[in-house]
Amino acid sequence: MAKQVVVIGAVALGPKAACRFKRLEPESSVIMIDESRIISYGGCGIPYYISGDVSDARELQSTTFHMVRDARFFEQVKGVHVLTRTRALEIDRAARQVLIKDLESGKEDRLNYDKLVLATGSSPRKISLPGSNLENVFTVSGLEEAVKIKDSISRGSINRAVVIGAGFIGLEMAEALIDLWGIDTTVVEIAPQILPGFTSMAMSRMAKKVMEDNGVRFLLNEKVLELAGENSVSGVVTDKRELEADLVVMAVGVQPNSELARQAGLKISNQGAIIVDEYMRTSDPDIYAGGDCVEIANLVTGKAGYFPLGSMANRQGRVIGTNLAGGQDVFPGAVGSFAVKLFDHGVVGTGLSLEKAREEGYDALSTFVVQFDKSHFYPDNDLIYLELVFENNTGRILGLQGISTNKDGLKGRVDAVAVLLPHQPTTKDISNLELAYSPPFSSAMDALNNLGHTAENVLQGRNKEIGPEDFVRLWETRDQQDIIFLDCRDLENAAEYLQKYPDKWRNVSNESMSSNLDKVPRAETIVLVCNTGGRSYESQLRLRKIGIDNTLNVSGGMKLLKKWGLDI
Amino acid sequence: MAKQVVVIGAVALGPKAACRFKRLEPESSVIMIDESRIISYGGCGIPYYISGDVSDARELQSTTFHMVRDARFFEQVKGVHVLTRTRALEIDRAARQVLIKDLESGKEDRLNYDKLVLATGSSPRKISLPGSNLENVFTVSGLEEAVKIKDSISRGSINRAVVIGAGFIGLEMAEALIDLWGIDTTVVEIAPQILPGFTSMAMSRMAKKVMEDNGVRFLLNEKVLELAGENSVSGVVTDKRELEADLVVMAVGVQPNSELARQAGLKISNQGAIIVDEYMRTSDPDIYAGGDCVEIANLVTGKAGYFPLGSMANRQGRVIGTNLAGGQDVFPGAVGSFAVKLFDHGVVGTGLSLEKAREEGYDALSTFVVQFDKSHFYPDNDLIYLELVFENNTGRILGLQGISTNKDGLKGRVDAVAVLLPHQPTTKDISNLELAYSPPFSSAMDALNNLGHTAENVLQGRNKEIGPEDFVRLWETRDQQDIIFLDCRDLENAAEYLQKYPDKWRNVSNESMSSNLDKVPRAETIVLVCNTGGRSYESQLRLRKIGIDNTLNVSGGMKLLKKWGLDI
Repeated sequence: MAKQVVVIGAVALGPKAACRFKRLEPESSVIMIDESRIISYGGCGIPYYISGDVSDARELQSTTFHMVRDARFFEQVKGVHVLTRTRALEIDRAARQVLIKDLESGKEDRLNYDKLVLATGSSPRKISLPGSNLENVFTVSGLEEAVKIKDSISRGSINRAVVIGAGFIGLEMAEALIDLWGIDTTVVEIAPQILPGFTSMAMSRMAKKVMEDNGVRFLLNEKVLELAGENSVSGVVTDKRELEADLVVMAVGVQPNSELARQAGLKISNQGAIIVDEYMRTSDPDIYAGGDCVEIANLVTGKAGYFPLGSMANRQGRVIGTNLAGGQDVFPGAVGSFAVKLFDHGVVGTGLSLEKAREEGYDALSTFVVQFDKSHFYPDNDLIYLELVFENNTGRILGLQGISTNKDGLKGRVDAVAVLLPHQPTTKDISNLELAYSPPFSSAMDALNNLGHTAENVLQGRNKEIGPEDFVRLWETRDQQDIIFLDCRDLENAAEYLQKYPDKWRNVSNESMSSNLDKVPRAETIVLVCNTGGRSYESQLRLRKIGIDNTLNVSGGMKLLKKWGLDI
Repeated sequence: MAKQVVVIGAVALGPKAACRFKRLEPESSVIMIDESRIISYGGCGIPYYISGDVSDARELQSTTFHMVRDARFFEQVKGVHVLTRTRALEIDRAARQVLIKDLESGKEDRLNYDKLVLATGSSPRKISLPGSNLENVFTVSGLEEAVKIKDSISRGSINRAVVIGAGFIGLEMAEALIDLWGIDTTVVEIAPQILPGFTSMAMSRMAKKVMEDNGVRFLLNEKVLELAGENSVSGVVTDKRELEADLVVMAVGVQPNSELARQAGLKISNQGAIIVDEYMRTSDPDIYAGGDCVEIANLVTGKAGYFPLGSMANRQGRVIGTNLAGGQDVFPGAVGSFAVKLFDHGVVGTGLSLEKAREEGYDALSTFVVQFDKSHFYPDNDLIYLELVFENNTGRILGLQGISTNKDGLKGRVDAVAVLLPHQPTTKDISNLELAYSPPFSSAMDALNNLGHTAENVLQGRNKEIGPEDFVRLWETRDQQDIIFLDCRDLENAAEYLQKYPDKWRNVSNESMSSNLDKVPRAETIVLVCNTGGRSYESQLRLRKIGIDNTLNVSGGMKLLKKWGLDI
């Protein structure tokens, strides 16, 4: 039987649900409304439009075959009727009607529905700052706003920008501003790290260093108090200083647009997101919701999660489209994978970071592996830096994060673990993960397998290791301690440190250690370092065999410490 | 309690097992023997040594920190005693002894063992050909042989090479010969396709085309009868012709080296591989075996499988090392993932190809998706061509294969499915697979998700599609049929074909179809084409709605057909 479906919101989820439904039930009718004039664009592409990688805003709104996905396109090609510049004012669930208003004419109207889809998305979180209404203060809220930012920049009068917030969008915007436009860019973040909540402290340090090496300046642990200026913004006042700025981008996260749902009496979470079941139905079975306005299950923690991401929205849209047509597709939840390009590096992760896992109450550990993406003898290989987060005792995998200049190679490894996370894999599964292999693609023992091995050795107490933060703590207090840093590499690698730190740095290469045990220094604490942590692990075993067990192995070795920004 | 472990074979699995065991039980002793002088090298790297990507053979034998893994290295660094140029003649299981022979001195000796590891590997399969003992006829059997091949080539007298066998090694060798050395290279393969048993006919056509575009010549369905020449090879005689050749590489697969195990009365499969349990133990619990000489479970078919691959050997070696030390690690089997670089392309797969799945008795289907690796608006994106193999009715995923110039991006997608295969995923799981997303890494709806969608639509009878072979069959017999090829793209794309084939080619773009239904041609069979199969699928639904259901949608569209080599 033909239905009338109304879809509120015409970006990502809305169009996907509408079109899928129309393909399944061409005899039914769909009306999709949106407040904006521009609809169905790739919002995640906005930073690349600002950076010039995408030259024309319309490309973000186009199909692969270069048709603009505007109201006319949906009408003629997809059979979906679209009302732009139209706001949904109210849902009358009893009457199954949506009260709408034409934002141009001000005229109100009512749309009947058999099934309703809420694709209301999210809005940039607003921090109430004096001066936030000044000119050249922007959020990244949509394509229309993005066009304004680019217009403002391309007039050439912008010299200094401040980005507030070091989340994904903030970092992508910072890269866009400095990379194409050469604008002196500072990112101010209230948290003690970039990408807070997503990456570990260690990984965020590595990511920050990449950005800094490319000219972005960061002010962490710093709170913006107000924006200064007369008409146009001229400065940013923080709790620590005043920054000059003729452009300010506020990117402090997003919040679900759930007001309409709340007013209609639908169940809303404490965090303000619409609650849906695994069929993407709200508490009213005739109303579906998905995308940035809903919360779904976090398949790692089992708790509710909020994942405002275009890929989620698209996949949820298809599930809704299927179910509108009487299907029973489920969207079981998400593990929270992410990918972000930062200049020539990718930072990719899934599941929980170490700190997040501990926050969630897990007895969590992490370990690092630094390894080439390809067989080490194969030319043009890139290093991949991976951090595996796992539960103590059980060895359950909680998350994986990485950084590398081989962005696709990194993402492939993270994805391989991400898709397994709902199956609750353990370190043993990672140890023995079957990944396609030949030398131009990976080592015979891939970095991921080695990560599993290392985690197992840590769990079994065989590998007693420390991460970069612990290393630095020990290093900085070395003069107050009976501590020695034993370099397990060849003299060639160690020489520089031996010379600089004659009291604290020693060298016995792992390979020569068995015949040089008398040269191994004794101290209350012996920190073992090599290039990536593998040889120093062997040394740790070697020393344990002769009764020296007060050693700490630096996970990921000097390569990791340097990537992290250690300069000793 | 300290043990005596003997390891027979010192490449890949042997060293891995030996070193892992020694790390776990440093008090035990390990003797590793090998017939060759050169041990512990990356055999998979041989084609890249031939091609010059790896300039020195020693690099294949070196650690990441540039130490050569020779007998001395294992002795001093790993505590593993190595006997090179030593053959194991016989295993005396009752006495727990291995009878060995020094190939230099001819002296025989006996080694006692508590536990024995068979890492005897595989040998190139020999076809009994007249002339195979001629000079410049090689197999790719080890590093010493590889050095001979390279020496022979670098003397500059080789102009024409014939590679017998179009498996992975054959193709890698062909690339090496033509790419660096400019040698006129022909590959002769007895099967009707390259990579027989691994890739589908369709995928192998695409791979072959890449090789041909780079100058490699293929002779399929052709059997080599003899090699001609006096001292050195001068030609190859097949059942169809005689080829000039001053170098012949025989690469017709490998066979497990299981003779020693067979003589010792261990269980051997009909295919000649050593049978092991999931702890990698042979039928004698004191004897472990792994790598190219064993068979393990195929986790897709549930039957025994043979996976001679360096990555398998390494991972199995670690399991054996752990279990030698009293551990209980398991190696549950493999799904059979592979990756091969062919010039600027990668071909990567996992599980079963379409033909292989049908051979195994599955009611198997496959579908193609051709999509950009990144968001389509993001610059510098590469196309990924994927083929998903799934079971009719159940939708169970049986395999995935692909080809792309984004080798790592392709491998990442295949790996994400590979690691799930043991969990028996269905098309729905692929539809909704959570992969890390942002525009520089993928589309919001990744190619893999779309592959799941397409498979679902096929399973539900909604998308009635054909692959490239069926298309060609229909195309070639078009004059004997009431058939029309309806191009669902814009006139701009269709014009060329309309002009060339005015009788059979028609054009009504998908986007204009609803208002041009009168222009849709009628015929007994209507084949719908667009660029990648998406718009033509929409057209198929559109036409079905008005009662035209005799349509066939070309999976993967014109992009796939062209990649496949169709020239119309």
